[in-house]
Amino acid sequence: MLRLRRIPLEYGKENIIFLSKRNKLFCAEHCSSTMKVEVHGGSTPIYGMTAIVDSDTILKPDELGLSPNAFEKIGIPEGSEVSLILSSAPSSINSLRRKIKGGVLGAKEYKSIVNDITLGRYSKLEIAALEVAESSFITPQEVFFMSEAIAEEQENLKWHRDIVVDEVSIGGVPGNQVGPIVSSIVIGAGMCMPKIAKRSASDPSGAVEVMETMCDVDLDKGAIMGMVEGIGGCIALCGGKMSLSPIDNILFDVEQSLGVGMTQQKVISIISQAISGGITHLVVDIPVGQSSIVRTMGEAMRLRKLFEYVSDMVGIDANVVITDGSEPIGRGIGPVLESRDIMSVLRCNEDAPRELREKALFIAGRVLEFDPKLRGGHGYYRAQEILDSGRALEIMNRLVYAQGKGTPSPLGTLTRDITASTSGVVESIDCAQINRIAMVAGAPLDKGAGVDLLVKVGDEIQQGEILYRIHASQSMAFAFAGGLAEGNSGFKISSDLSSALG
Amino acid sequence: MLRLRRIPLEYGKENIIFLSKRNKLFCAEHCSSTMKVEVHGGSTPIYGMTAIVDSDTILKPDELGLSPNAFEKIGIPEGSEVSLILSSAPSSINSLRRKIKGGVLGAKEYKSIVNDITLGRYSKLEIAALEVAESSFITPQEVFFMSEAIAEEQENLKWHRDIVVDEVSIGGVPGNQVGPIVSSIVIGAGMCMPKIAKRSASDPSGAVEVMETMCDVDLDKGAIMGMVEGIGGCIALCGGKMSLSPIDNILFDVEQSLGVGMTQQKVISIISQAISGGITHLVVDIPVGQSSIVRTMGEAMRLRKLFEYVSDMVGIDANVVITDGSEPIGRGIGPVLESRDIMSVLRCNEDAPRELREKALFIAGRVLEFDPKLRGGHGYYRAQEILDSGRALEIMNRLVYAQGKGTPSPLGTLTRDITASTSGVVESIDCAQINRIAMVAGAPLDKGAGVDLLVKVGDEIQQGEILYRIHASQSMAFAFAGGLAEGNSGFKISSDLSSALG
Repeated sequence: MLRLRRIPLEYGKENIIFLSKRNKLFCAEHCSSTMKVEVHGGSTPIYGMTAIVDSDTILKPDELGLSPNAFEKIGIPEGSEVSLILSSAPSSINSLRRKIKGGVLGAKEYKSIVNDITLGRYSKLEIAALEVAESSFITPQEVFFMSEAIAEEQENLKWHRDIVVDEVSIGGVPGNQVGPIVSSIVIGAGMCMPKIAKRSASDPSGAVEVMETMCDVDLDKGAIMGMVEGIGGCIALCGGKMSLSPIDNILFDVEQSLGVGMTQQKVISIISQAISGGITHLVVDIPVGQSSIVRTMGEAMRLRKLFEYVSDMVGIDANVVITDGSEPIGRGIGPVLESRDIMSVLRCNEDAPRELREKALFIAGRVLEFDPKLRGGHGYYRAQEILDSGRALEIMNRLVYAQGKGTPSPLGTLTRDITASTSGVVESIDCAQINRIAMVAGAPLDKGAGVDLLVKVGDEIQQGEILYRIHASQSMAFAFAGGLAEGNSGFKISSDLSSALG
Repeated sequence: MLRLRRIPLEYGKENIIFLSKRNKLFCAEHCSSTMKVEVHGGSTPIYGMTAIVDSDTILKPDELGLSPNAFEKIGIPEGSEVSLILSSAPSSINSLRRKIKGGVLGAKEYKSIVNDITLGRYSKLEIAALEVAESSFITPQEVFFMSEAIAEEQENLKWHRDIVVDEVSIGGVPGNQVGPIVSSIVIGAGMCMPKIAKRSASDPSGAVEVMETMCDVDLDKGAIMGMVEGIGGCIALCGGKMSLSPIDNILFDVEQSLGVGMTQQKVISIISQAISGGITHLVVDIPVGQSSIVRTMGEAMRLRKLFEYVSDMVGIDANVVITDGSEPIGRGIGPVLESRDIMSVLRCNEDAPRELREKALFIAGRVLEFDPKLRGGHGYYRAQEILDSGRALEIMNRLVYAQGKGTPSPLGTLTRDITASTSGVVESIDCAQINRIAMVAGAPLDKGAGVDLLVKVGDEIQQGEILYRIHASQSMAFAFAGGLAEGNSGFKISSDLSSALG
């Protein structure tokens, strides 16, 4: 038996199990590599990999250390007696091997894989292997099996209503965050829209990050039920009090490091989330653009069919729209900046970004048309009505008030202006590069970080004119983002006016 | 600037860069996830992921910690001033993305990927992604590009001889370690055979682990050159003083955790190693068996063709042999036990395992036939001659003496006998299960651990008779291996004699 100790050291999101190099039972001289082990004695077994510590100040030979996340899960105090055993490979690992070799797995195999992952029996490396294997080859039916298996492991909400709506974008376009505007309009129309969204991995901001600049988003099930009862919806976080599937957690890391949206994985993630959230009707936005996640119309079409097939199988009515993702939508990129634009649209300000307003009305219109009482084709005008009447703003204010006070997020005070090196017309803006600069500056984790676009495609500009402003709060991130932007601003400026315009 | 500190904590083989949660420049409140960073100020930049420490005893706010492996690489003392910057994605990551999406990469792309990996710019997760993507789909030409790229990054040996030989098995069969016998015979015949082998990942023992029970294997380049000059060969470690490619290092982890031999990766690993070692002629053994790594003749054939294509491209004369991998070869499984069997074969003992002797003579014969002076078909007999004359034993003794004293490895004193549950005839032995039991018992890291087979396929046995003995030195590993063997001994015993024999 070993005495439990909390080790205040986080590395990724993995459960780390610390052992002393002088631990006689497990280590001796042979122990130099990581082992998969299980810790028993708490409210739940902890599966993880061993880290070997060669310092009695950090960990004594008769102690077993757990990283903070694992310590929280085991649910017993420091000093408790725990025991350690070597972990055998989870039984579903054979299915994973088959998948890696190009096999097609069945529903039961996906259930067993997802179950083992949820129990923490897969290493990060193994989950990454699964995701890469899936992104190499997966059948639509397998996408369905996997989505259902993940949804089954999550806490599922039931609403006892005929229509529960949501909208989601697969991302990749800067300033594309229409979520909070759409929610305000749709809830304003009397529909039920309980948005429970993940943090953004591959984009500089998501709906929850925007809301988080104004109010609390980490709601528990009771609070979410209350919000839906009282207002008709919420914008809450999946991955805090509402738990996030460990698969999505790792997907997040894989996405971050590979910087790719693995599109089939996005379908799995979006559909499983919709099932868990009790969503019956879903609008999915696929922006297509040369510098976006989905680059060609053909790819977008295949993805649309996949969404349609899987949502049909799980009984969700999905309306998949393919939109223009060739250039940034709003002006601000990053939570605080996007929240500024969103509030400006909701307030119907004269200078509110027009494209953001239009996209929000378009998406909200599609959601509203799920309502059988609304005449086909009238969604957009109904949305416009609700937005322009101030009803949407009123709903947003109620949401912010009801979700409770969060930590206010100031805009990053370190700023750097990126200017045009030549005069001419903005021919194109590289979405991926602008997103990258905003993320390197700190977004979305640092809410005040991001990029504020001052000109758009088609604008005529003079040499030295400001293209955009980088905001950051950490000096390292600031320096790095500045360097990145100086190296490649993401703007293509054509000095030949006639060719650019025409 | 931060002050450098060595943190005595190992987790996998990754470079870990420790930062205090109270580090003002980098962390503040926003810093909760791992970041890819670069540490500058030492003899080489260190690339790695951050671990966040929330304890001033472990790490002070103005300190930067490095895990022991990274600390060794940076090559400057504790307290030195170092600086930290965020790391951008390596440029080759775009090629990786293409590979994940099923693309075919060119020679330059593989060079750039391997170069970035060697510099430590890829995370473990990214390398795993590459390997899984490659094992899903890779062309023979890409296998060639990748092998060459890896070889270029390693320290390459040149021998200025026409024929420099080696032999290698893709593994998966227990007790298949003929390497030291073959080396002794081949060197005894006057050929040059500088074996520089990796530690075993998916098997309970490799040639270096066997040698390591008798002598030192961690030789530097000078020592290896001296051995080849004086005796004609050596059995040395790749991954100690002779450095191992970081790709192979991670491949090791992926193989260990997925438990699969990704065969194309084995080709890359074997061919790149042969190039680095200056090998001109190579015998490759592919054992085929239902419970081995390669399970069907078709698979073995494809693998043979791949080996032949790639070795032709890099200018190595490869003789690929497909052998019987349906059952264990020798008796002992694990370094000490296999070394016992190997010495018994070299001493030409009456009770030496016959199959091990035969396999060694077969493989050695194939290697000897690379010699143009030897008449075709005479390799086996020449090998037999050298073994039976005591010349091979003499060479082994010289190798052991010249390589120098290592740490003697005793046989594990914790033993457990696994007995037959019924009387009958041994119909089959599950190679994968026997290997798994030996590895769970601690092999190959714990050299004294393993499985000692007392009966073989075709043997008639009585209920209660010992099938094999598990050896271990760590009590946890011992208990776990015992449980694994009780659950599934790996032996199939047929009580119906006629059906089993006939």
